[in-house]
Amino acid sequence: MISGANYIGAELSKKGKKQFNTFNPKLNLPTEWTFQEANEEEIEAAAALAKEAFIVYREFSGKRRAEFLRAIAKEIENLGDELIQVYTQESGLPEGRAAGERGRTMGQLNAFASLLEEGSWVEASIDPAQPDRQPMPKVDLRKMQCPLGPIVVFGASNFPLAFSTAGGDTASALASGCPVIVKSHPMHAGTGELVASAIIKAAELTGMPNGVFSNLNSSGIEVGQQLVMHPVVKGVGFTGSIKGGTALYKLANERTEPIPVFAEMGSVNPIVVLPSALTEKGDEWAKQYAGSIMLGAGQFCTNPGLILGIKSTSLDDFISTLGTEIDKLDPICMLHPNIHSNYEKGKKELSDQATVDVVANHDADVAPNMAQQRVLTVNGTNFLKNTKLHQEVFGPFSIIVRCSDADEMQAILAKLEGQLTGTILGNENEIKKYKSIVHTLQDKVGRIIFNGVPTGVEVCPSMQHGGPFPAATDSRFTSVGTGAIQRWVRPVSFQNWPNESLPEALQNENPLGITRIVNGLHTTQAI
Amino acid sequence: MISGANYIGAELSKKGKKQFNTFNPKLNLPTEWTFQEANEEEIEAAAALAKEAFIVYREFSGKRRAEFLRAIAKEIENLGDELIQVYTQESGLPEGRAAGERGRTMGQLNAFASLLEEGSWVEASIDPAQPDRQPMPKVDLRKMQCPLGPIVVFGASNFPLAFSTAGGDTASALASGCPVIVKSHPMHAGTGELVASAIIKAAELTGMPNGVFSNLNSSGIEVGQQLVMHPVVKGVGFTGSIKGGTALYKLANERTEPIPVFAEMGSVNPIVVLPSALTEKGDEWAKQYAGSIMLGAGQFCTNPGLILGIKSTSLDDFISTLGTEIDKLDPICMLHPNIHSNYEKGKKELSDQATVDVVANHDADVAPNMAQQRVLTVNGTNFLKNTKLHQEVFGPFSIIVRCSDADEMQAILAKLEGQLTGTILGNENEIKKYKSIVHTLQDKVGRIIFNGVPTGVEVCPSMQHGGPFPAATDSRFTSVGTGAIQRWVRPVSFQNWPNESLPEALQNENPLGITRIVNGLHTTQAI
Repeated sequence: MISGANYIGAELSKKGKKQFNTFNPKLNLPTEWTFQEANEEEIEAAAALAKEAFIVYREFSGKRRAEFLRAIAKEIENLGDELIQVYTQESGLPEGRAAGERGRTMGQLNAFASLLEEGSWVEASIDPAQPDRQPMPKVDLRKMQCPLGPIVVFGASNFPLAFSTAGGDTASALASGCPVIVKSHPMHAGTGELVASAIIKAAELTGMPNGVFSNLNSSGIEVGQQLVMHPVVKGVGFTGSIKGGTALYKLANERTEPIPVFAEMGSVNPIVVLPSALTEKGDEWAKQYAGSIMLGAGQFCTNPGLILGIKSTSLDDFISTLGTEIDKLDPICMLHPNIHSNYEKGKKELSDQATVDVVANHDADVAPNMAQQRVLTVNGTNFLKNTKLHQEVFGPFSIIVRCSDADEMQAILAKLEGQLTGTILGNENEIKKYKSIVHTLQDKVGRIIFNGVPTGVEVCPSMQHGGPFPAATDSRFTSVGTGAIQRWVRPVSFQNWPNESLPEALQNENPLGITRIVNGLHTTQAI
Repeated sequence: MISGANYIGAELSKKGKKQFNTFNPKLNLPTEWTFQEANEEEIEAAAALAKEAFIVYREFSGKRRAEFLRAIAKEIENLGDELIQVYTQESGLPEGRAAGERGRTMGQLNAFASLLEEGSWVEASIDPAQPDRQPMPKVDLRKMQCPLGPIVVFGASNFPLAFSTAGGDTASALASGCPVIVKSHPMHAGTGELVASAIIKAAELTGMPNGVFSNLNSSGIEVGQQLVMHPVVKGVGFTGSIKGGTALYKLANERTEPIPVFAEMGSVNPIVVLPSALTEKGDEWAKQYAGSIMLGAGQFCTNPGLILGIKSTSLDDFISTLGTEIDKLDPICMLHPNIHSNYEKGKKELSDQATVDVVANHDADVAPNMAQQRVLTVNGTNFLKNTKLHQEVFGPFSIIVRCSDADEMQAILAKLEGQLTGTILGNENEIKKYKSIVHTLQDKVGRIIFNGVPTGVEVCPSMQHGGPFPAATDSRFTSVGTGAIQRWVRPVSFQNWPNESLPEALQNENPLGITRIVNGLHTTQAI
């Protein structure tokens, strides 16, 4: 049952005056669900509860927080078919995607639970005292990661589950010991409310303090801005547009106390097709990339929006095959009329640039909000000159650049902004032969892929989802994978602290049995 | 021999028009050394060289970079007595301090060298492929820390060696694989040039690329601003005032590509004196704190500027003893007339506040630039009301707050801004009894000390020197200790990358023998 209310901690609250509905892009009609936007009083209440909850929640052991995360996963599963139905209605995405994304969301929660149960993520480091050291005695110093405080998470339009209410940002922040206030995404506020109810239920079942989680509705930007500026808030997680993420980043830096904003923003995810990939596997790659560009109506931040090759007949063949293959695929419904109209606008703007040619253009009488794919091509000189062509078009759209040679290819890579991913198609010898191209690409990205597609982001410790600006606001962190927890913590050193008053992770006996750094070396031994 | 020139890589360069001299605060006269401020052409040249050098330098093994760092330490030692003489003339600090700081600077360089030789600092993480995984095969993902690119380091006035030209910022950035451009501090440009010559010599001896290090003179803020805005620069290290650090931080965020600025700024380093410390050891602590306040003329960022106690006769006794003890100590020469006049201004401003009383006030006919100590006291209510009293006065100055009870003490701590350190004086039972006070303090600081003084910052893996804003611009990093290297790197994931083309740290065989995280668990085993 969707109430349309906000969750201020465990309490359903509808104090504001602004209302909005979500939208079914397939029917091209508003849904039946009306939501009440959070007002200032509710924002204040959520912040005050989060502050109180932090005092208790931070003290809970990793094992207790893990119970909470596992219970959230379980309660999301218990939402059953209602969640799938609301998700598909609010997003236009198919049931299979909904079920897959639900599985991923539960998987993420359980992965963070496992991380907490194992416990070494706190990076405990111990340098015991040396009272006899000359010329000065050495004090006892012990350091570990401690949670920052309440975190605000912005739901992402393109992942109603995995990057929203109980997605990677929320899971990692709750895992770290920080309470979370979600600014629910207005396009899937119903999905958000259902997931929020699962989190609230899990919090109650596992004895978490009220206020460890709140969920606020909003259709505009005000609620988010107020949350980012709130003095209780100590960090922000965001996935979305460069414009939105940069605005929040700048806002947070204007606070009396600036706070970290981790915004994962846009990316064109350049693909470098080296000669052997064209001559040996051109058709195969063309087919795979047609699929990758179309995946989820191109609404992935890792969608391949830019393909670079060196002029040759085999590049011509690749382009022609990619065009043929992508034409065969059926357009997919986009998440919302706004996203669809932005896609049409972006597609037109780039297609209208002089010097570009059309490789493929799906142009049929389709249902509303369907994303009709388009692929353009341009030569390297013109691409280099026109930075408009470097911009992301969110949807099933890609540009293939015909570079005159490897030097031009490298010059283009050097000119690109930061990216989430970069891909090299070729053979092992070419990695060496084109070393300088590979390095130039590596410097622009968070993840570099050999012979694959960038879509598909594995959730594991070795994933880096982020990259130099504007792929993300801080390339030193990731928003996917267990490493994402490091965004919400800071190291605290304890000097000459009595053993029994130290956090367990730092006590002599190593009661948690974790891997620690003692005198600079990894060990699980007691002191 | 001091030339007064800039080092643009290995080349001595004097192209600018602006000149300045350093100053001997003890003689109250300019030194004999005249320096040429870097001009735009020289800034461009240093940046271009750093960019080129990065391509080569990043590829060097940890062992090669360690050789470079150890050679720098050696060459600093080889500067011999000239370095000590120039240091003391430019800073007014005694020879013992100069020698001690030189030792610390060399120790830091060697500590980073050891970190590189051991090698695990790159946080290598490997999740091998699982081609048979259902429903989807798992790709091979491997992640490690990679250097950001050229880093700009600002010399700090109060540590001409340990936080300046070859100080912790430079040592950690060079260790990480990043070239460094130093904006030399104008108060000790001669010391800076000597140390720069040692770095350049070490670079030549160990075959480092030209441009891995440059040293630029400047007397104003323009050179620093231009460096921070330069597109080649990928990160900034700064130690100094809140005003200076915040300005650079905001500037860097206004770039087309914002870059991380780690600024370690001010702190009053609150001391919480719990009842047992007053009744059992009041005199001893009063004596120790008189010394800690006076240390180095109070010119340490960890100087204890704020002492909180609960009203009692034993607090009165402590205050009176501290006053007597600090009066006995001789004033010390400050670094520069500007720092001295700022000290006098700050001291006067806080002393002029209504409701404060003087505990100790050294007021004698002293030589120029001598810092005459002052200690004030105020009751908790008035301190809470007047945030002017919360500000740092850089010098031998401290305020003792008489709190009416523990609640007021906690309210004061909750109101303070972020701090580098916080200290609890008391016994182990009091840590539990005043748990809420301890936690409130912990949330404000990077390092929490039990029964000690905050001055004295150990260089080791467990040190955290940083803290919530405005102690530092990013509480998630440290500027002292080997952890400081993490400011200049970002994780890069390699997906399905051929084993032999991977960086050694990520290869199956673990050729470096480092501790890695494989499938989420620490191990030194090969794959």
